[in-house]
Amino acid sequence: MSDNNKVSFVVFSGDMDKVFAALIIATSAAASGMEVSMFFTFWGLKAIQKGNLTGKGFLGRMIGLMNRGGIERIGPSRFNFGGIGRALFKKMMKDKNVVGLNELLETAIDLDVKLYACKMSMDVMEIAEEDLIDEVSGLMGGAGYIKEASESSVTLFI
Amino acid sequence: MSDNNKVSFVVFSGDMDKVFAALIIATSAAASGMEVSMFFTFWGLKAIQKGNLTGKGFLGRMIGLMNRGGIERIGPSRFNFGGIGRALFKKMMKDKNVVGLNELLETAIDLDVKLYACKMSMDVMEIAEEDLIDEVSGLMGGAGYIKEASESSVTLFI
Amino acid sequence: MSDNNKVSFVVFSGDMDKVFAALIIATSAAASGMEVSMFFTFWGLKAIQKGNLTGKGFLGRMIGLMNRGGIERIGPSRFNFGGIGRALFKKMMKDKNVVGLNELLETAIDLDVKLYACKMSMDVMEIAEEDLIDEVSGLMGGAGYIKEASESSVTLFI
Repeated sequence: MSDNNKVSFVVFSGDMDKVFAALIIATSAAASGMEVSMFFTFWGLKAIQKGNLTGKGFLGRMIGLMNRGGIERIGPSRFNFGGIGRALFKKMMKDKNVVGLNELLETAIDLDVKLYACKMSMDVMEIAEEDLIDEVSGLMGGAGYIKEASESSVTLFI
Repeated sequence: MSDNNKVSFVVFSGDMDKVFAALIIATSAAASGMEVSMFFTFWGLKAIQKGNLTGKGFLGRMIGLMNRGGIERIGPSRFNFGGIGRALFKKMMKDKNVVGLNELLETAIDLDVKLYACKMSMDVMEIAEEDLIDEVSGLMGGAGYIKEASESSVTLFI
Repeated sequence: MSDNNKVSFVVFSGDMDKVFAALIIATSAAASGMEVSMFFTFWGLKAIQKGNLTGKGFLGRMIGLMNRGGIERIGPSRFNFGGIGRALFKKMMKDKNVVGLNELLETAIDLDVKLYACKMSMDVMEIAEEDLIDEVSGLMGGAGYIKEASESSVTLFI
């Protein structure tokens, strides 16, 4: 056991399977009594968006159209045959009684997992603070993240 | 040097190049005298499958068709021009006397690298324990992984 | 805070957005007074190439044609609609006064971030030492990387 009891992730990917893996590890760690902080950056921000179109300018709208936010809209990174991938993945998880992304995110919040949003990515991608779910613990930059990470015994980039 | 001597990976990706990188780091660490544990989850499970079709149900068969298991069937994540990618990569590795995936996996096993399979991913993807190679050290969930990781000085998500 | 003050990354990906994230975290950590080492391997090597074609043999030329080196040629991993992706990303970063990849790399070098190239990947991909930018701190293998990583409080695979 390390000299501290904290886990910190960078959630960079917006792929459903990776966000799923991140949330599974996060809730497992929190349930084991560890402090957990997740730093959502770039495409990962989708996981903590409200589900609205993002951005107001033309470029922001283009990205918004491609990446409509909200955790239920995230696609899987693999076997996406004609858009069936996501439905297939959901059905498999349901058949097997594995919880979905939304339930996992709620569980993480219940277990006091801290959710931080990357300020710079929000600026670049034209995502406003009000576009994020209310449970977000705060906005951070690279310096804030590295402080969290240097206090953690487990650090992952997902 | 940290206060411990252990390395733990999550091998999430099934891309040949990433599995290759994971095994290179794992064998390097083990050869340096460190304890190494690899936690294979999602697509990463392909690396420790026997090479048989996975799953018995319809959905499992579909995924099986796309992801026929076994480490020699893994494709590279990049430059996959018409399926040539894997052969090209293999040829280059051979020309350069770099060992292949199977040899690397055998080396890892010889060096006592622990190979764990993610129980939940196996359920979702309909992979049974007998589909995995015999050298797998055991099945684990998120809680088991996080315990391994919190005891490790190096943690990577690959 | 861990018992050491060092960060080490594996930069495996050659996708612009991931290299960008790696450099942001690296410069943030270095600016916070931490020691930072980046180990560029596989596609990540593009970030520290001079911008020349890589490789001399036929296979090397094929890869060179696909992966012309140099940090300004790296494409984004997502929203690459017909090659517009990179230009779009650059424009957004410029509009928002976010620095580009080249400036970030220069900043990292100014802050004494160590840049290591993976010897084995260079062999496989036919990249010579003179193809790399002069600021590269040295070549390393897996054993060298794992030593760096085991001395670090933050370890990421990007």
